[in-house]
Amino acid sequence: MARFAVLTSGGDAPGMNAVIYGVHDEATAKHAEIVGIPEGFKGLASGDRIELAEPVVSPAILSQAGTILRTSREADLRLGHVVADCVASLSRLGIDGLVVIGGAGSLRGVERLRVSSKVPIAFVPATIDNDIEGSEETIGFDSAVNYGVAAVDSLRVTAESLLHRAFLVEVLGANCGRIAEAIAAATPIDVLIVPERPLAQEEVARRMREALNTRYAIAVMTEGCGEAGAVARELGEIMGARVRPTVLGHSQRGARPTARDRRLGLACGRSAVSALLAGTSEDVVVRRGAPTLRPVGSPRAQVP
Amino acid sequence: MARFAVLTSGGDAPGMNAVIYGVHDEATAKHAEIVGIPEGFKGLASGDRIELAEPVVSPAILSQAGTILRTSREADLRLGHVVADCVASLSRLGIDGLVVIGGAGSLRGVERLRVSSKVPIAFVPATIDNDIEGSEETIGFDSAVNYGVAAVDSLRVTAESLLHRAFLVEVLGANCGRIAEAIAAATPIDVLIVPERPLAQEEVARRMREALNTRYAIAVMTEGCGEAGAVARELGEIMGARVRPTVLGHSQRGARPTARDRRLGLACGRSAVSALLAGTSEDVVVRRGAPTLRPVGSPRAQVP
Amino acid sequence: MARFAVLTSGGDAPGMNAVIYGVHDEATAKHAEIVGIPEGFKGLASGDRIELAEPVVSPAILSQAGTILRTSREADLRLGHVVADCVASLSRLGIDGLVVIGGAGSLRGVERLRVSSKVPIAFVPATIDNDIEGSEETIGFDSAVNYGVAAVDSLRVTAESLLHRAFLVEVLGANCGRIAEAIAAATPIDVLIVPERPLAQEEVARRMREALNTRYAIAVMTEGCGEAGAVARELGEIMGARVRPTVLGHSQRGARPTARDRRLGLACGRSAVSALLAGTSEDVVVRRGAPTLRPVGSPRAQVP
Amino acid sequence: MARFAVLTSGGDAPGMNAVIYGVHDEATAKHAEIVGIPEGFKGLASGDRIELAEPVVSPAILSQAGTILRTSREADLRLGHVVADCVASLSRLGIDGLVVIGGAGSLRGVERLRVSSKVPIAFVPATIDNDIEGSEETIGFDSAVNYGVAAVDSLRVTAESLLHRAFLVEVLGANCGRIAEAIAAATPIDVLIVPERPLAQEEVARRMREALNTRYAIAVMTEGCGEAGAVARELGEIMGARVRPTVLGHSQRGARPTARDRRLGLACGRSAVSALLAGTSEDVVVRRGAPTLRPVGSPRAQVP
Repeated sequence: MARFAVLTSGGDAPGMNAVIYGVHDEATAKHAEIVGIPEGFKGLASGDRIELAEPVVSPAILSQAGTILRTSREADLRLGHVVADCVASLSRLGIDGLVVIGGAGSLRGVERLRVSSKVPIAFVPATIDNDIEGSEETIGFDSAVNYGVAAVDSLRVTAESLLHRAFLVEVLGANCGRIAEAIAAATPIDVLIVPERPLAQEEVARRMREALNTRYAIAVMTEGCGEAGAVARELGEIMGARVRPTVLGHSQRGARPTARDRRLGLACGRSAVSALLAGTSEDVVVRRGAPTLRPVGSPRAQVP
Repeated sequence: MARFAVLTSGGDAPGMNAVIYGVHDEATAKHAEIVGIPEGFKGLASGDRIELAEPVVSPAILSQAGTILRTSREADLRLGHVVADCVASLSRLGIDGLVVIGGAGSLRGVERLRVSSKVPIAFVPATIDNDIEGSEETIGFDSAVNYGVAAVDSLRVTAESLLHRAFLVEVLGANCGRIAEAIAAATPIDVLIVPERPLAQEEVARRMREALNTRYAIAVMTEGCGEAGAVARELGEIMGARVRPTVLGHSQRGARPTARDRRLGLACGRSAVSALLAGTSEDVVVRRGAPTLRPVGSPRAQVP
Repeated sequence: MARFAVLTSGGDAPGMNAVIYGVHDEATAKHAEIVGIPEGFKGLASGDRIELAEPVVSPAILSQAGTILRTSREADLRLGHVVADCVASLSRLGIDGLVVIGGAGSLRGVERLRVSSKVPIAFVPATIDNDIEGSEETIGFDSAVNYGVAAVDSLRVTAESLLHRAFLVEVLGANCGRIAEAIAAATPIDVLIVPERPLAQEEVARRMREALNTRYAIAVMTEGCGEAGAVARELGEIMGARVRPTVLGHSQRGARPTARDRRLGLACGRSAVSALLAGTSEDVVVRRGAPTLRPVGSPRAQVP
Repeated sequence: MARFAVLTSGGDAPGMNAVIYGVHDEATAKHAEIVGIPEGFKGLASGDRIELAEPVVSPAILSQAGTILRTSREADLRLGHVVADCVASLSRLGIDGLVVIGGAGSLRGVERLRVSSKVPIAFVPATIDNDIEGSEETIGFDSAVNYGVAAVDSLRVTAESLLHRAFLVEVLGANCGRIAEAIAAATPIDVLIVPERPLAQEEVARRMREALNTRYAIAVMTEGCGEAGAVARELGEIMGARVRPTVLGHSQRGARPTARDRRLGLACGRSAVSALLAGTSEDVVVRRGAPTLRPVGSPRAQVP
């Protein structure tokens, strides 16, 4: 009987619980044993484990953001002794395959671990940032975008009631503007500020001023472009008008998982187990709205 | 200056307003005039029109389900005189191109109208049912699925508090099981009842009984498979246990548009105007999460 | 060190978890021990208990409907042996005071148990039905009403897009019309059908017909007045128009707890512990939006 | 036939549309004419008016925050000429009674207008801040509190997944801490920072540090206590840990109206019309969850 382990790593993302459920469900269906590793690679390095069974894993977890396995950013797989600890734990726990659920940083960790460990590892892309090369969409992205759109909706309804006010909405994404772009693609805003296409503050102020004169101004900014309170103050000085900040902060990370993130999560979790049962080390990527397996070492750009 | 018209037809779907906004926005940007036709083909046959300008068309409409143009199911384009009335209205209103937003029935109407009218028509697939051949996803589907998943979530939380109860959730979709299937792909349920794969009632009862014994039972059924109250009663008699129905009804049709449906809606609306500006009669379909133009008359199965 | 027990009984209600949290928090603050009894009086009769500590009791439970203690309707305190079992369990577990969280049926059970047990019992009114004499508002009612209003909102937006359709919304409340009345007090509907004021079907049909002719018709009906599918069919026959049912069913019971239900829940849970610490057997009722203690045996009508 | 006017003034609040609907509905039922004044006292001073009839006033407006009449903060009733303009408009428009919907600032404006105008004015308390003397609860408060609780819920779910992080949530309320207090009364947080009870930053940091060590720290702060970005940075320096800000900003003002705010809104709107029909100038206040009329000039503290 095969024995697999699953962990979530890095920043948590809505839908991670769906992946865990999918992993557990598929493993159970295929008569494999499944072990939960708490707090990501830190827990793996420490050799920790938790039981994955009802009520810990129940259908109710799919409706909750975050991860029932908890995550951590502490273990650094660039350090040889951390890798060694992880390898030792996999061996001691008798793990035949590992599912790692996380973002870009976690994928780099997986690649380092693969160098030292022969245990097949299936990586599942779950991050609100949607910045995994080869995946068109990561688990958590759709939920974070919907959360952001709802915040802009609320702003707009008050903006239309008391005209000629300016608003700046800071959204998550670190240095990746995809969340902000997707929000802007779903609801018309006046200025989009993302790290990939820097705008001079005067230009931002000019566009907001123009919108302000007509009705009201809404700008959406990725967190990596500055601290909203300060940026709002600076813009306000240029514009000669108050700019009111809204900062989603980590509330956005805790957004309720959408149906799409749950469906992707369940499907990717199941695909990860299938890959491990085949004895291969593969990344699960998302192409055309469905999980696709990508053999490790394949040039990412060539994934069809 | 080109003059385009836009109408929504058949059952309304969340995201239709995003299409209207996209049509209006793109037309305005390209210096085309845009005319709204109220209440679908019925309004077109009558030669009705409404002004499409602020505040009728504002970014606020994107957050609302339904259609600001209203829709109707009355005009029957199988009738020659209705088609003739539509052709006459297009001519009298000086329309150079028409955007029709609707589902499978509306597409058939478009095909009939195209036979008699030389005015290019761009069709945009918007229906919660997701049953447009050639489109992987229709506008409104994602919103309807999310609404259904939320209802199952609520059921589950009470089901876990007071065990051994059985629930039957009737969802929209007429005779198309895709909404129900997508709900089931996003949240684990016990029985899925869709028109495409009929199940004997004894089999449904057997599976629910089994789930009920373990914890609780949740079945999801497409409306076309029966009336939930009656089905619940019949299942209950076989099972010897009360089955409690939940019927989403048209509340599901009025679901708040998701970010995805708004993004698709805006993009498809813009693509429709682009097609009309090019002077061609095309259908907008959705492939890989983005609008794609399909020349009229092309065999649908061959759309890439 | 005092030792208290807490249980939830009867139908679960949103906000019950807030009461449990409040009970646990106040008891801990006052250095009392707190024991959880699973599955209501059934669990008490069986002498079951569960540990109430992190992570079972965490602030996260407040956002979830249902009850982490689970509930049950099986134990019947009209039966002498059930009462005797409960009394024996309280004694064996060394309980100095019991908090019972539930509705009207549970309060009757509490009254029966008080006859046989000297252990002080504090009752906290938590039921979506809002039918506890002496309480102006029960925990769970506000959440259930908000859920119902949201369903009517969704109906309305599609109703306005495709006019002249009739809808019937069945809401919870058993034979108590308060949920339906509160929904109707928050959103204008056309007909309100509650058990307390029966309407002839012809009268309902007449009013719906009138609304239908103008725009669209929405009726809200308490579940105790009939099965929505059947009533819709009958009304439709009289009206000569299709009436579409929406049945909230137990999804409404699993509504996300509102801020108000959480605040009342926390406050009532704390008040219950205060009462027990004072060594008295009292009911917690809600008056003017805050918990009030009512000495047992006091004529209910005279509660200020 | 009596002719009444209605306006919304100051910051908009969820539920204002319910008041407008209630005013319109009651006036229509009592055969009074009702005139809408756009953009508050500014619109009144200018003598503007808008038609209040379908579809401007429809049941659908109740589900939307903001005010369909728009509001403004420009007109300053401390200025004699503004008051004179308002008096002149009331006379020119033939207004027999005026309903003013707004907050504390608007009430002061009403009092100034009453000195110069004989037209009876009914004031309805609608502000998210809940700072109207004599009213236990203002329209909009419940919605704003629910919005804040939802943001804290989202934070908590990610906080529990990746422990030992600190969060600071800035909520609306200007210099009034009631919104923050009500959020804290509905969901357990670690530090509450309100203008009424200033805390030394070292004390805030100490409590957050303590919570952080155990699990995670969540502080809620009223906007009037500082700018969240700056406060988070300062706290972080004292704590030696990063503090992540969330700023609800005006998104909170645009919160979807709760059932309670709609019910209060409808009832207060109707009461205001009743007062005007009686020919008296009264304030509508909310006592025990229902509108109560308070004769103008009565000492506020003595309102029962």
